[in-house]
Amino acid sequence: MAGGSGTRLWPLSRQGTPKQLLPLVGGRSLLQLAVERSRASVPAERILIVTGAAQAAQVAEQLPELPAENILGEPVGRDSLNAVAWPAAVLARRDPEAVIAQVTADHLIEPIAGFAATLQTAFELAEARADVLVTLGVVPTSPHTGYGYLHRGAALPGFSGAHQVLGFTEKPGLEVAAEYLASGEYWWNAGMFVWRAQTILDQVLALLPLTHAAVTELAEFPERLPEIFPTLVKISIDYAIIEPVAAGLGSATVVAVGLEVSWRDVGGWASLASVLETDPDGNARQGRVVTVDATGNVLVNADPEAVVGVIGLRETVVVRTPSATLVVALDQAERVKELVAAITDEAGREFA
Amino acid sequence: MAGGSGTRLWPLSRQGTPKQLLPLVGGRSLLQLAVERSRASVPAERILIVTGAAQAAQVAEQLPELPAENILGEPVGRDSLNAVAWPAAVLARRDPEAVIAQVTADHLIEPIAGFAATLQTAFELAEARADVLVTLGVVPTSPHTGYGYLHRGAALPGFSGAHQVLGFTEKPGLEVAAEYLASGEYWWNAGMFVWRAQTILDQVLALLPLTHAAVTELAEFPERLPEIFPTLVKISIDYAIIEPVAAGLGSATVVAVGLEVSWRDVGGWASLASVLETDPDGNARQGRVVTVDATGNVLVNADPEAVVGVIGLRETVVVRTPSATLVVALDQAERVKELVAAITDEAGREFA
Repeated sequence: MAGGSGTRLWPLSRQGTPKQLLPLVGGRSLLQLAVERSRASVPAERILIVTGAAQAAQVAEQLPELPAENILGEPVGRDSLNAVAWPAAVLARRDPEAVIAQVTADHLIEPIAGFAATLQTAFELAEARADVLVTLGVVPTSPHTGYGYLHRGAALPGFSGAHQVLGFTEKPGLEVAAEYLASGEYWWNAGMFVWRAQTILDQVLALLPLTHAAVTELAEFPERLPEIFPTLVKISIDYAIIEPVAAGLGSATVVAVGLEVSWRDVGGWASLASVLETDPDGNARQGRVVTVDATGNVLVNADPEAVVGVIGLRETVVVRTPSATLVVALDQAERVKELVAAITDEAGREFA
Repeated sequence: MAGGSGTRLWPLSRQGTPKQLLPLVGGRSLLQLAVERSRASVPAERILIVTGAAQAAQVAEQLPELPAENILGEPVGRDSLNAVAWPAAVLARRDPEAVIAQVTADHLIEPIAGFAATLQTAFELAEARADVLVTLGVVPTSPHTGYGYLHRGAALPGFSGAHQVLGFTEKPGLEVAAEYLASGEYWWNAGMFVWRAQTILDQVLALLPLTHAAVTELAEFPERLPEIFPTLVKISIDYAIIEPVAAGLGSATVVAVGLEVSWRDVGGWASLASVLETDPDGNARQGRVVTVDATGNVLVNADPEAVVGVIGLRETVVVRTPSATLVVALDQAERVKELVAAITDEAGREFA
C-alpha cells in the first residue's frame, strides 16, 4: 500500500509528491525501502503496489524491477479497503490459492530478517488455516495516541508469536493509551495483514457485497477502472473488515502475530525526526540550516536556493520548500492536516 | 543618519536593502517617514542623508525632493562618528553658523508636531550656547537592555525640558536597567543630537584630530572620498565624543532635552511587531500567512511565490523571503546578528 497524500508531512510531501516517494533515508524513498524489505520474502514479480494513478509513473521509475502490470493506480483516493480488496481480486485471478501479505510503505522496519521471519510465521498460519485474518502487532513503547491498539488474547497453539485478538481501539486518549501500555496486553496495530486472497474476498463479499462485485469486475476488466473505481465506498480496512470480523461478523477469525522488529511510523514530522541526522544539540536536520542556541528541533530545508536560520528555538519543526514554510511545535505536529485544510481555504489549493 | 546594514531585521533587510529603505509602514520606508518628520522643522534642501554608497541611488529614488548633493554615500561603513563629523564639515563650509539636528532614520516617532517642538527647544539651546551638545532623551517605558541610558541631572534654567547629563550607560544588564527605570532619573538615549556644526567639529578636533583633518579635507574635496573615507577610524559617536565630553573631556557640555513623543525603535523584529497589522490572536503579520492555534507571534512572508503556515506557535518570529527563512523566539530576537554571522560562516556571504 503506497497511497495517501502524505498531508502530515506537508509541505515536503505535496499532492504531486506524497511522502512515500520522497528520498528521506539516505537518498532512498520509504517505498523503495519497503520493496527491498518485501523482496526478502517474495520475488519482485510477486510484489504489487497500490498507489494513486497520478503517482504511478513515479512509482514505476523508482521500482524498475517490478513488472508494469503490478502497479495499480487508483484514479481517486478510496481509503484502505479498496487498496486491499482490489489487489486481492487481481491476485485471486492469477492464483486462486494466493496468500497475501498486505504491507505498508510508510514505516521504517529493521532488521529486514526479523520482518521476513514474522511474515514467514504469518504466511504459515494463513496457509494452514483458511479462516484467519492475520494482523501484525507491534509491542508499544509509548502511550501513543495516534495509533490503533489491539487487545491480545490467548496464544494460538502451534504458532509461535501468534495470538487471538479480543478487540481493537482506534487512537485512544492518553489515559487509556497509558493503561494499555501498562497492562502489557495490547499491541499497536501495524496496519499490515496476511491472509489468503480468497479469505479476505469472502469477508468483503459478506460485509460489503457491492465492493466485492466491483473489485471482481475490475480484476477481470482493468480497462473499466476509471468508470468503476470512483463508485467504490471510501472506508478503511479496519472499519470495514477487521473490526467487524473481530467482533464476530464475517466468517473468519482475527489473529495477531507480533512483529519482533524496530518499527517506526514516519507518518508525521515528529516521527520523521528519527530518520534524519541529528546534530550535537539534538536537532534532527536536513539541508542548508544554520542554528544558534537551538535544541531538540526538526529542521528541514528542501529549498536549494535558500538558507534556514533559527535562534533560541526548542522542540519546534521548521520546514522550508520552494513554495512553503511550515513552523509547528513538535508536540502538535500531528495537526498539520488542519493547517493544510486552512491553507487550501485561505491561500488556495495550489499551496496545499 | 540612514546607514547600517540592518542586520537585526535579517532576512527582510539584507546588505543590498537595509531596513530603513524597506516599505514597512503603509508602503513607506522609515527613511521617507524620517524625512517627512524633519520637513516639519527644515526645508528639504537643508536635509542631508548619510547612507551607504551602495544605497545612495535607492535613497535618491525614495527622496526625489532632496538635492542630489545632499546624499552623502559612505564607501565603507565607519560607524556613527563619521556619519556625524562628515556632514558637520560639509555644512560648516556651506554656513559657518549652521546648527545641526542629527537624527536617525530607523525610529517611529509620533506625533510629528511633538518632535518638531522638541527640535525647536534644542535648536534654541544650541543657538544660544556655543558650548553645548544637546542629546535627545526618551522617558523609558520598560527596563530595555538594548538601549543606552543617560543619567539626568538638574534642569537647565531657561530651557523647558532641558537637563544636565551626569553620565551615560550603554546597554545595561536587566537589573541595572530596572533600577534606572524605577529611579525616574534616567532617559533612554535616543541617539539624536542637536549642536552647532562648529561646536561638534571642535570636539572632534580635540578628541580625534586625524578624523577632523580627514572630514575637513573631504568637505573641501568631495572627489577624494574613495581615498579618504576608508582611512577613518570606525567608532560610534557615543564612544568617541558624547561620553568623553560628558566625562569632562573636550570643551563642551552635554545636555539633554526630553522627546515628548511616542518613540519606537524598529531596529529589530520584536519592535517591528508594533508597526505591523495584528490579528485577533495577537499575531503581528504581513504577507500570505496561515495560522492554526497561534498567538503572539510575528509572522512575515515577503516571498510572493510561497505560503507560510504555523500551528501551535507562541511568541515566535517567523520570516520568509525568497532566499531565507528565519525562526527565532521573540524574546531572543535581538540575537539575529549572531545568526547572520553564523550564516555568513556556514552557508556563505550570499545568504547574509
